[in-house]
Amino acid sequence: MKYKYSFFNDYSEGAHPDILSALQQTNLSQETGYGEDSLSLHAVELLKEKIGNPNAAVHFVSGGTQANLIVLASMLKPYEAVIAVSTGHIFVHEAGAIEATGHKICTVQSDDGKIHPEQIQIVVDQHSDEHMVKPRVVFISQSTEVGTIYSKQELQAISDICKQNNLYLYLDGARLGSGLTSIRGDLTLADMSSLVDIFYIGGTKNGALMGEAIIINNDQLKDNFRYHLKQRGALLAKGRVLGIQFAELFKENLFFDLAKHANEMAGKLTQGIKEQGFEFLTDSTTNQIFPILPDVMIEKLKEMYGFYVWSKIDADKSSIRLVTSWATKEEAVTDFLADLKMLATQ
Amino acid sequence: MKYKYSFFNDYSEGAHPDILSALQQTNLSQETGYGEDSLSLHAVELLKEKIGNPNAAVHFVSGGTQANLIVLASMLKPYEAVIAVSTGHIFVHEAGAIEATGHKICTVQSDDGKIHPEQIQIVVDQHSDEHMVKPRVVFISQSTEVGTIYSKQELQAISDICKQNNLYLYLDGARLGSGLTSIRGDLTLADMSSLVDIFYIGGTKNGALMGEAIIINNDQLKDNFRYHLKQRGALLAKGRVLGIQFAELFKENLFFDLAKHANEMAGKLTQGIKEQGFEFLTDSTTNQIFPILPDVMIEKLKEMYGFYVWSKIDADKSSIRLVTSWATKEEAVTDFLADLKMLATQ
Amino acid sequence: MKYKYSFFNDYSEGAHPDILSALQQTNLSQETGYGEDSLSLHAVELLKEKIGNPNAAVHFVSGGTQANLIVLASMLKPYEAVIAVSTGHIFVHEAGAIEATGHKICTVQSDDGKIHPEQIQIVVDQHSDEHMVKPRVVFISQSTEVGTIYSKQELQAISDICKQNNLYLYLDGARLGSGLTSIRGDLTLADMSSLVDIFYIGGTKNGALMGEAIIINNDQLKDNFRYHLKQRGALLAKGRVLGIQFAELFKENLFFDLAKHANEMAGKLTQGIKEQGFEFLTDSTTNQIFPILPDVMIEKLKEMYGFYVWSKIDADKSSIRLVTSWATKEEAVTDFLADLKMLATQ
Amino acid sequence: MKYKYSFFNDYSEGAHPDILSALQQTNLSQETGYGEDSLSLHAVELLKEKIGNPNAAVHFVSGGTQANLIVLASMLKPYEAVIAVSTGHIFVHEAGAIEATGHKICTVQSDDGKIHPEQIQIVVDQHSDEHMVKPRVVFISQSTEVGTIYSKQELQAISDICKQNNLYLYLDGARLGSGLTSIRGDLTLADMSSLVDIFYIGGTKNGALMGEAIIINNDQLKDNFRYHLKQRGALLAKGRVLGIQFAELFKENLFFDLAKHANEMAGKLTQGIKEQGFEFLTDSTTNQIFPILPDVMIEKLKEMYGFYVWSKIDADKSSIRLVTSWATKEEAVTDFLADLKMLATQ
Repeated sequence: MKYKYSFFNDYSEGAHPDILSALQQTNLSQETGYGEDSLSLHAVELLKEKIGNPNAAVHFVSGGTQANLIVLASMLKPYEAVIAVSTGHIFVHEAGAIEATGHKICTVQSDDGKIHPEQIQIVVDQHSDEHMVKPRVVFISQSTEVGTIYSKQELQAISDICKQNNLYLYLDGARLGSGLTSIRGDLTLADMSSLVDIFYIGGTKNGALMGEAIIINNDQLKDNFRYHLKQRGALLAKGRVLGIQFAELFKENLFFDLAKHANEMAGKLTQGIKEQGFEFLTDSTTNQIFPILPDVMIEKLKEMYGFYVWSKIDADKSSIRLVTSWATKEEAVTDFLADLKMLATQ
Repeated sequence: MKYKYSFFNDYSEGAHPDILSALQQTNLSQETGYGEDSLSLHAVELLKEKIGNPNAAVHFVSGGTQANLIVLASMLKPYEAVIAVSTGHIFVHEAGAIEATGHKICTVQSDDGKIHPEQIQIVVDQHSDEHMVKPRVVFISQSTEVGTIYSKQELQAISDICKQNNLYLYLDGARLGSGLTSIRGDLTLADMSSLVDIFYIGGTKNGALMGEAIIINNDQLKDNFRYHLKQRGALLAKGRVLGIQFAELFKENLFFDLAKHANEMAGKLTQGIKEQGFEFLTDSTTNQIFPILPDVMIEKLKEMYGFYVWSKIDADKSSIRLVTSWATKEEAVTDFLADLKMLATQ
Repeated sequence: MKYKYSFFNDYSEGAHPDILSALQQTNLSQETGYGEDSLSLHAVELLKEKIGNPNAAVHFVSGGTQANLIVLASMLKPYEAVIAVSTGHIFVHEAGAIEATGHKICTVQSDDGKIHPEQIQIVVDQHSDEHMVKPRVVFISQSTEVGTIYSKQELQAISDICKQNNLYLYLDGARLGSGLTSIRGDLTLADMSSLVDIFYIGGTKNGALMGEAIIINNDQLKDNFRYHLKQRGALLAKGRVLGIQFAELFKENLFFDLAKHANEMAGKLTQGIKEQGFEFLTDSTTNQIFPILPDVMIEKLKEMYGFYVWSKIDADKSSIRLVTSWATKEEAVTDFLADLKMLATQ
Repeated sequence: MKYKYSFFNDYSEGAHPDILSALQQTNLSQETGYGEDSLSLHAVELLKEKIGNPNAAVHFVSGGTQANLIVLASMLKPYEAVIAVSTGHIFVHEAGAIEATGHKICTVQSDDGKIHPEQIQIVVDQHSDEHMVKPRVVFISQSTEVGTIYSKQELQAISDICKQNNLYLYLDGARLGSGLTSIRGDLTLADMSSLVDIFYIGGTKNGALMGEAIIINNDQLKDNFRYHLKQRGALLAKGRVLGIQFAELFKENLFFDLAKHANEMAGKLTQGIKEQGFEFLTDSTTNQIFPILPDVMIEKLKEMYGFYVWSKIDADKSSIRLVTSWATKEEAVTDFLADLKMLATQ
């Protein structure tokens, strides 16, 4: 890449060195295939302990879209649908993966990436007969696609409205590490887990080569889940590769430490950009931030740093997305802020 | 595992050490996501050169079932079907993955795992109107699910009958390395490639952590293939992980060397077992072999070695499947043959 | 039904008597099955003549949702999507039928039930890479779900923007008769047909027992269409039943006469309701009208007439939907207006 | 048609005159749409009484393929499959309709069109893990696609094996009338119904314009079935058309009388053909028979009568399929036998 540093995303580098080491150390042991190896089983036990649910079912897959399409297809009858915000990853950025399994996504508008309980109720109430789909699952992301997070109280309220309406609650945790370690977060992993029927913990965006851990808390959703994995092409012959990585992330606190670092780097960026007088599109304390900058500055920044222009704000300004990761060095942050300042004073 | 050695499959170990090294060496470079990184692009160029088709499109995915379901779904209109032998992986061992994309598999019987041109013609002729599906693709595996291989002449004949009937030819190369390096094989990679519309080169079963390289030769099948990948959850955020491995396998001859080693270990097993007077279910010169042994011996062997019992032959005998890999040491072969001899003489 | 008259919909009665007679007269002739009978072939010829396209392909199916799901599934590759207004029948009232064939519907907001060319362009521009679906078809209804119609100029503009963006244009004509015979309509059947790639002519809502005629103008969409029909369960063994009805509707002008009558009855209702000082939700000149009435009057009207309450306007008023048909007698209209007046003066 | 008489199928004519009269008599009453009309509700009550299950759920659809694809899609989770004989309509003649809903059909060979309990057990036993689909439904036809019927004892045995293996049993009754009224049949409608979880009664092939009545006995399969109907395009706006016909067929014995007539005409053909010394492919006592004739005679017969050549028997002989119906006049049978005799003596 041509950039001083790329803030395009949190998957520009490979894996955290400890993860590569773990792969190395276990490399030549002969193991059972398709995720039934001793290393994956060990990772499953670690995760059940960390979420505080010994009865959970745990499965590893290689990516977030794969996790979402398999989980949702496993939960829904042909005529059932999922409710999500219109900025939700499943609605916008999965190339119709959910619809390709046969299911509609009923969307509600949201400025902050979060769904509100009353919106869920409205969708349920609107779908009253067999000429319409039947909503059955609520999909949320933590942290959301625009960097915000649900508080414990908010998640509890969503969980409640779901239970009242016989809806399953599914949480996409592609950036769960970032959500859980945000300075404003008040949910532990175990708290969060206890409030949802099913969720996944994202490894790809938090230091793994690849890998997401699907956790099923609701007994009704556990049966024959491996059939779903196999049918969608998600059962890796060397499933050990996923298990080893999650074992490494969760044997102590690596998962949380890496996410915390990413958040801290984003926090420094946020503080520095605010000090220079710029506003933000959303109020993010996670590793995705959306500063609003003059278009002329954005053009010049793009020659030095990698990032996406997110949305047009007015004739002269746009929001951009900056993403930090476990691998972002403080130097990259300092450089960016210095270059921003220099451009601002030109 | 409790075994002296497991011959269950060719994916019991991790990756060849050179592949792990390559992951290590490139680990911290920042790269574009979703397979558009410089490392994957390099691997694509290497592969195009090795197959002798500069116009080929190359895409990496993480597993064979994933490759099969995406490739077939991309080739078929809703009412179109694929022709395969009834032992074909897509028919038996993919949990209905192809049907889940909406398509029927029309099967023909085969003792040796290979389809014959006249069988293809019969299926085409039988499907004559809109009350039946319309066959559009022929699926073959090289080497096949029972260890056999197509000769150049056989593959040419299948290719011809496909062209005559406006059928696409797709080759599943989960074990292509083994097929190409068999002592009886007369097809080079480039030969093979020139005779099929689309195929994949298996990495998982030949030394990679995971990864299959889909090669599209036919221009009609190239458009928007990345949409199919994304929609089925196959576009890894860190696509580099797949590209790096294929670059390592094909930068020189590692891919072929590993496969050749696996075949040689299987060859030694075959020779030793034959010398002890046993017969085989199929005539395999690849890394899967199917000796026929007395059930009483099988029971005792199972305590020492890992392998599948394949099929019942008569009241007292069964065939078993022994699979070797790049990681099988000659010592494991020698031990197995010695133990077999010992059991035979008890 | 307990009502003086039901304005619930345009399919409360059976078929126009001429259609029943035609079924009677042809009843005992032996005919080929599955729509290849002489009666259906005759209807096909009549329709090709009426739309002015001798090269059109014509197929009969039994209902509108069936027509929509088959047509769209036949036009789209797995990753392709359809653009529609959010009030579109396929989005709201088909129980996810389109998604069940694997495809996303990209919606745009609309107050008048019509899509505007610039909205189409925006959707196309927003879908720029393989992380999103690829829009390929624009779906419109004539008349729309809220009783409005596209003018010739409007349809031409939509057709143009579709061609510029390589999009197919599909028109749902469940109420096409009503649209074509509206006093404000300036499109002939042939005009309309020439501007779209594919459309269907609704029989069910215009005097038939059931039946929609799918007309394919674009050669690219004709191949093997009967396979799609069969696969979705739409190829009736006694396809003659559909052909006979369309032959009767189009042998002279019955189709247009019936629709015109329905529009006239709705027009009288509209005029009478306006004269009593009430407003309307949409500006309809077709057989669906949406007067806005005080909720207290609506409650009393519901005891005498069948109709749907459509939408809440404010604390005291709602819009209702009144639908007339070929079978609506002028007496029902007169009664309704008199009862409305009486209620207004209470 | 050019023939003296067509024995191609049992849907060459329209409807029995009583059915047309019933449509006529109810034509102008205003009724609720989508199958919730008073006429359909009446037909539902009649059918529940005739099958002897007041708790059954009854739904009307327009054709057999539609019935099969909806019923099976409603019963199966994504990874579940249906077991059928390889001559089964769903496997051969529905253009992949079942696979298009995402499900595999596991087939067993059968000479007489019937599945045997031990074949079911073998399929279940073979599908042992998540690399394969999971069989969940057994599909049978009564009468079968080759004119044979299950006896009470045979159906009981199949029902038992299904219960033992947690499989649903679904019976395709496209020709149920013929099966129930066969001289060799020992099952009443109520008997049959009590042994299956779900089945449909065919109207199309027994005197209706179109229409099949789906009967759901198993409570687990009843929920939200109308959503499935709507989503697959099977909920006719004028559902009354189907209800009226079934009410007419079952208000007294018309359904059985028509089927019995068809069987008797086939029986006369069978007896006459046997008397002329010819053999039959299957032992049918229903309205489809499969005599084996010299190819030279078949060629001449084809100029006079409509029928399908079914299968090649040897170099000089083939089996043909002759189908009789409620509308077949005895004269057609007599003529056919006379012409056959004349040809035999030439």
